Amino acid sequence: MGDPNGIGPEVVLKTLMDSRILKYIDPIVVGSIAVMRRYARLVPMLPEQIREVSDLDDTSPAQAGIRVYDAFGGHEPVIQLGEITEAGGRASMRAVEAAVDLCLGGQVQAMVTAPISKEAIAMAGYTNRGHTEFIVQKTGVSGHTMMMVADQLRVGLLTEHVPLAEVPAMVTVAAIGDKLRLMTSSLIRDFGVERPRIAVLGLNPHAGDGGLLGREEMETILPAIEAACEEGVHAFGPFPADGFFAIGMYRNYDGVLAMYHDQGLIPFKTLAFSTGVNYTAGLPIIRTSPDHGTAFNIAGKGEADPGSMRSAVFLALDIVRRRMRAAT
Amino acid sequence: MGDPNGIGPEVVLKTLMDSRILKYIDPIVVGSIAVMRRYARLVPMLPEQIREVSDLDDTSPAQAGIRVYDAFGGHEPVIQLGEITEAGGRASMRAVEAAVDLCLGGQVQAMVTAPISKEAIAMAGYTNRGHTEFIVQKTGVSGHTMMMVADQLRVGLLTEHVPLAEVPAMVTVAAIGDKLRLMTSSLIRDFGVERPRIAVLGLNPHAGDGGLLGREEMETILPAIEAACEEGVHAFGPFPADGFFAIGMYRNYDGVLAMYHDQGLIPFKTLAFSTGVNYTAGLPIIRTSPDHGTAFNIAGKGEADPGSMRSAVFLALDIVRRRMRAAT
Repeated sequence: MGDPNGIGPEVVLKTLMDSRILKYIDPIVVGSIAVMRRYARLVPMLPEQIREVSDLDDTSPAQAGIRVYDAFGGHEPVIQLGEITEAGGRASMRAVEAAVDLCLGGQVQAMVTAPISKEAIAMAGYTNRGHTEFIVQKTGVSGHTMMMVADQLRVGLLTEHVPLAEVPAMVTVAAIGDKLRLMTSSLIRDFGVERPRIAVLGLNPHAGDGGLLGREEMETILPAIEAACEEGVHAFGPFPADGFFAIGMYRNYDGVLAMYHDQGLIPFKTLAFSTGVNYTAGLPIIRTSPDHGTAFNIAGKGEADPGSMRSAVFLALDIVRRRMRAAT
Repeated sequence: MGDPNGIGPEVVLKTLMDSRILKYIDPIVVGSIAVMRRYARLVPMLPEQIREVSDLDDTSPAQAGIRVYDAFGGHEPVIQLGEITEAGGRASMRAVEAAVDLCLGGQVQAMVTAPISKEAIAMAGYTNRGHTEFIVQKTGVSGHTMMMVADQLRVGLLTEHVPLAEVPAMVTVAAIGDKLRLMTSSLIRDFGVERPRIAVLGLNPHAGDGGLLGREEMETILPAIEAACEEGVHAFGPFPADGFFAIGMYRNYDGVLAMYHDQGLIPFKTLAFSTGVNYTAGLPIIRTSPDHGTAFNIAGKGEADPGSMRSAVFLALDIVRRRMRAAT
């Protein structure tokens, strides 16, 4: 459902009301039935078309309408459209917790997370910085990587939601090796690439320009790439980040490893806005999400574009199918 | 001319051989007559069509062909196509020095610099990191800012060619104020914007997300914006950098101030590749350059795209005309 004060409920409804999607998936909205009904008028649909479901093991054919698994015991979270509130943060995370439980229990095969507000969940007392950190903690996995996906463009991040000043110290041979291995196995397992080729971006302007604009490329990134290659990972670079996307070099690679958030997200969103998806590789469960935020400024206006949410649903479906085929 | 081992001479010739440009400007290539003749076959044109000119005050009507002002006294720099060499670095900078002298002497009204290699000029003993730093030193100007220009998209950089690890300490209230004032006066004087509105990007992911992902936005960038606004600068932000370009927010502003090189250059090149121009605002002379590098990998192959060089010439022309109009 996402933060009930943001555009999450709206893009969820817009995505699921197109009944063609039911040919492929059997969707369950995890969140609040009251909240979802409140948003019905935006889409528009009738509140009655949004139905509560309590028994997910009920395999009778889906009836018309959108099914909601209520994580609030009928209690309705307080909505303040467009506001960052403690109630919004608490509601967001309760839905995430319930969805993760359904995934871990095997009652659903994948989860797609609508946007939440990091500030709101902090107000509600959560110490995790977002969905991903929460899921990582809950599933006890040791390594994961955020990968932004749009068709053949797949961008992984070495460092994610950390202040820029902390990034350079986190650029280590070990960290780069871990991410390259994780991306390689995800590209094989989740994306069906047989022999993934990964481009690694530099940290500094012009990838350090031979050491004149920073030494991390020579002292850390290149040695990390070489070490990974010796283990059979097909990694290349480091490449200057500014030209890499502009001249379409990413098309020659199955994945790109960026050193920090904005270095990967700026070009990704510029190239793929409204269809980009965030995939968390390396988790025991399958989880995707749209690449946009809560967009509080347009919450409740009916203007939100469901393109990225729809792509996120279809990417989750692709990965479920690929893993099922691989398992048989 | 640029580095003779890169694509500089080629894009210069490709730009100037289109004689329609002579309706607007009276171009002089500053560099080596021998080097430019060597590149003639690539374009292709006859070496004889490239003529040496020694007296720039000769105002007789331009003859057909491309005029070169030789900065080497007839001596031919050693060319090693696609290589980073000391000779290439020395030749690059000798041409830059000569062009700056022509500008400062008033013999030409603007200069357009073809790409050089920072590594090559370091090999040749130059301690400047590039054209810009050299020109700044030579002209003794106290403040300047690199601005990337493509139509209405104009991106200025708070920090330029410095290692990423040094960036956060350089994000200060004073530095941001200086750049905002410089950009404002350049937008007025050079671009004819009456009341320039400038968007300022955040340093951290999500512009710090309310302090959770870094405090520079709250402690430095926002106070700097507020202080500048009190002085009459129209500055806004700080905005999260990843979505800013993707959703086209830059169209609402006359300029954008990025905190570091890749934050500005990644989206600029992605949105404007092959027509983007680098303008150095705040210099006593008018100087533009294409937004690409030496592209050693395609040097001498005839494949280089002159689009950005052509745009750089026309931007210089626009600025010359605007300043002439303002002076009358």
